[in-house]
Amino acid sequence: MQFHYLAEVRSKNPLIHNITNIVAAHFSANGLLAVGASPIMADSVEEMEELAALSSALVLNIGTLDADKIQAMLVAGRSANRAGVPVVLDPVGVGATAFRRDTVQTLLQEIRLAAIRGNAGEMAQLAGVAWSAKGVDAGSGAADVGAITAAVARRYETVAVVSGETDYVSDGLKLAVLNNGTPLLPSITTSGCLLSAVCGAFLAVAPANDYLAAAIEACTAYGVAAERAAAGLQNTQHGTFMIRFIDSLAAVTTEQVAAAAKVRWADIEAV
Amino acid sequence: MQFHYLAEVRSKNPLIHNITNIVAAHFSANGLLAVGASPIMADSVEEMEELAALSSALVLNIGTLDADKIQAMLVAGRSANRAGVPVVLDPVGVGATAFRRDTVQTLLQEIRLAAIRGNAGEMAQLAGVAWSAKGVDAGSGAADVGAITAAVARRYETVAVVSGETDYVSDGLKLAVLNNGTPLLPSITTSGCLLSAVCGAFLAVAPANDYLAAAIEACTAYGVAAERAAAGLQNTQHGTFMIRFIDSLAAVTTEQVAAAAKVRWADIEAV
Amino acid sequence: MQFHYLAEVRSKNPLIHNITNIVAAHFSANGLLAVGASPIMADSVEEMEELAALSSALVLNIGTLDADKIQAMLVAGRSANRAGVPVVLDPVGVGATAFRRDTVQTLLQEIRLAAIRGNAGEMAQLAGVAWSAKGVDAGSGAADVGAITAAVARRYETVAVVSGETDYVSDGLKLAVLNNGTPLLPSITTSGCLLSAVCGAFLAVAPANDYLAAAIEACTAYGVAAERAAAGLQNTQHGTFMIRFIDSLAAVTTEQVAAAAKVRWADIEAV
Repeated sequence: MQFHYLAEVRSKNPLIHNITNIVAAHFSANGLLAVGASPIMADSVEEMEELAALSSALVLNIGTLDADKIQAMLVAGRSANRAGVPVVLDPVGVGATAFRRDTVQTLLQEIRLAAIRGNAGEMAQLAGVAWSAKGVDAGSGAADVGAITAAVARRYETVAVVSGETDYVSDGLKLAVLNNGTPLLPSITTSGCLLSAVCGAFLAVAPANDYLAAAIEACTAYGVAAERAAAGLQNTQHGTFMIRFIDSLAAVTTEQVAAAAKVRWADIEAV
Repeated sequence: MQFHYLAEVRSKNPLIHNITNIVAAHFSANGLLAVGASPIMADSVEEMEELAALSSALVLNIGTLDADKIQAMLVAGRSANRAGVPVVLDPVGVGATAFRRDTVQTLLQEIRLAAIRGNAGEMAQLAGVAWSAKGVDAGSGAADVGAITAAVARRYETVAVVSGETDYVSDGLKLAVLNNGTPLLPSITTSGCLLSAVCGAFLAVAPANDYLAAAIEACTAYGVAAERAAAGLQNTQHGTFMIRFIDSLAAVTTEQVAAAAKVRWADIEAV
Repeated sequence: MQFHYLAEVRSKNPLIHNITNIVAAHFSANGLLAVGASPIMADSVEEMEELAALSSALVLNIGTLDADKIQAMLVAGRSANRAGVPVVLDPVGVGATAFRRDTVQTLLQEIRLAAIRGNAGEMAQLAGVAWSAKGVDAGSGAADVGAITAAVARRYETVAVVSGETDYVSDGLKLAVLNNGTPLLPSITTSGCLLSAVCGAFLAVAPANDYLAAAIEACTAYGVAAERAAAGLQNTQHGTFMIRFIDSLAAVTTEQVAAAAKVRWADIEAV
C-alpha cells in the first residue's frame, strides 16, 4: 500500500470544519494542527453554509448534541454536499439514547457521507446488529466487527471506519484490518473524536474515488503515531501519553508510518 | 479508616453522567478515565432521562450555566432520584450572581443530593453564613469551615465536601478533616470540578448508607494523587503538574492512599 | 520601557471575565491562572451585568458564536463600560463569514473597547484593507501590518494588537514593534485567544491612560515566556510546548521579560 496523503495534508494544510462536542474541541483542534491541517470549530447555523463551502472537509460529531447543533449539522452537511466537500460523521454513543439514534438517522438520510467513524458498539447500532447482547469489549469476535464495518459501508454507501484494539476500514467491497495502536489510546478522552477529525483531514486531500485508501492511511498514521508516543511509557501515564501523542502526530513521517504499518486485506463475512 | 472504594471504581468502571461547564469538560473526562470510571458528558434535555437512568452517578456543575442546561439538570436529577442513582452538585461560584444563587436554590429544592462539593466561599453561601465579610482565603478560621461543612450537610440532608488547603467532609453528624493535597492543585483550572466528578465515581460504587466514607476516600485519594504528582515540582510548574496529576490518578494504589492519608475526626462546632 | 504590570497582575490577581469559545475555555483559564489572574468563564445573559461589574476586565471572543452569546456580549460589554472596566475584543476569524463580520460590527458600535487583539488577516478586515489579496502569511509586508494596526486603533479609538511572527501594538499615535515569540506558538490552538485574555489581565491593573504600555508588556511577557518554553524543543513538540508554556507563564519574572524584550517604536505609514 502506498502512503502519500499524510504528506498532502502537510503541504496543503486543508481547512477542516468541525461541529463537535465541548469535550473534544480543544484536543481535536490541537491534533489537527499537529497532523498538518487547519481546524475551525463553529456550530452556529447562521454561518454554516459559508463555512462548509470554504472548508476542505466537514466533520460532524454528536458528542454533546442539542437542537441548534442538529440544525447546524444539517445546513452545513447539505452545503458541503453541494460543494463536493467530504463529510465525516462520528456517531458518538449513538446507541445510548433515542435522541442520538434519531439524530443520526436524520443525518444519514439528509447528508451524503464520505466516511463514518465509530467504535464497535456505535457501528453495530448503525448496522442494525444486536451488539449489546455480546458486549462492546475488545476480543468479542474480530470477524464480526469486520462484517459490521462492511455492512455499515454498504448500507450507507460510505467508507466505514471502526476503531478499537484492531481497526477495520471498508467501502463495502474491500475490508482492511489495521493493527497499529496502543492500549493508552482509549485511556484518553476523545481519542476517537480526534481520529474522526484526522480522517476528515486525509479525505480533504484525496479524490473521492480514493477515500478508502485515505481513511486507511489516516488510521494507520494515527496508530503509528500513538505507538511511538507510548514507547517507554507505563500504562497509567495517561496524561504524559496525551501530550506526547500530539508531539508524535506532528513528528511522524510517512516513512515511519509505512515501515510500522500493519495493514492487511480480509474477506468480508456476513453480519 | 478502611479504603476500598478506589478499587471498586477500577473494577466496576461506573458510568458517570456529567452536566458540566465548557472549561471543565475535557479535564474532568480525562480525570474520570484515569481514576477508573467511564465519563459521559451530555446536557441536552431530550436525552437526560435515559442517560441518568443508565448511569451510576450524576454530577451537576453550574460553571457555565444557561436556561437549557438548568432544565436538563432538573430532568436528569429527578430521573436519577427515581432510579436511586446518587447525584452530586458542584455549586461553582454560587455566591457570584443572583442567577447562580437562584439556580442552586431550585436544584436544592427539586433534587435529592447525595453530596455537595464546593470551596469554602460557595459552601458558606449555601449555609447562609456571611463569609465574604471574612474573605475566602485559606486560613481564615479552620473550625469555622468545618462548622459550615456540617451546617450544609444538615440543612440539605446530604454529604457536604468543602475542599481547600484542608478538606472537610460531613454528613451533619460526623466531621472529617483531611490534610492531603498540594498548593499546585488550585493553580490548575477546574481541579475542584474534577474532584466533584471523582466524588460521583466513588459514590457510584458505594451503598447509600456509606456515602460519607466514599466521599472521604475520594478526597483522600485525590489529595494523595496530587501530592505524588507534585513531588519534585516547583510551584510554578502548573502545566507539568496538570499532566502528572492525570498520570498519578491512574497510578495511585489503595495502599499508597492508605499510607499517606491524613484523616481525622473533629468535633462539630456551631456555625 | 519600564515593565511593571506583570508584577501588578500577580499581586492583585484581577478577576477576568471571559465570554469565550469552547476550544479556548480551558487553556485560557489555565493561562490566566498561570500569569497570576483569576479567570471566570460565563456567558449566560442572566448574569452578565453582575459579573461584568464585579470583574476587573472583560474579554469577548467570537470563536464559537451563537445568538445567545452575542446578547450576552452586548449586555456584559455595556455593563463593563458603565463600570469603567476595560473590554478586550478578539475578533476570531472575522473575515470568514458574514455572521462574524456583522457581529463584530455590532460589538464595535455598541461597546467602547480598551483593546482589540487579532491576527493580521482579522485586523486587516477591521481596517477595511483588502488583505486576502495578499494572503495572510507572515512576511507579506511588515510595514503594512504596522499600518493596519495603527489604522484599527485610530478607527475604533482603541489599542490595537496584531500578533504574529512580529507583533504590533498601537494606540493610533504610536506604534510598537515586538519581536519576541517562537514558531511553536501558532502550532498550538487558541494561543491567540489566550493572548487576548492575558491582555485583559494586564489592562485590568493599568490606568486607562496607560493601556498602550500595558498591552505592550502583555505581548512581550507572553512572547518571552513562549521563547523560554520553546528552548531546546524541536518544532514538532507541540504538546510539550503547550504544557511548558503554562509553566513558563507562571515562572517568568519581570527581570527576565525586561532582559529579553525586543521592543522598538516605528513610524506609522499610511495603509
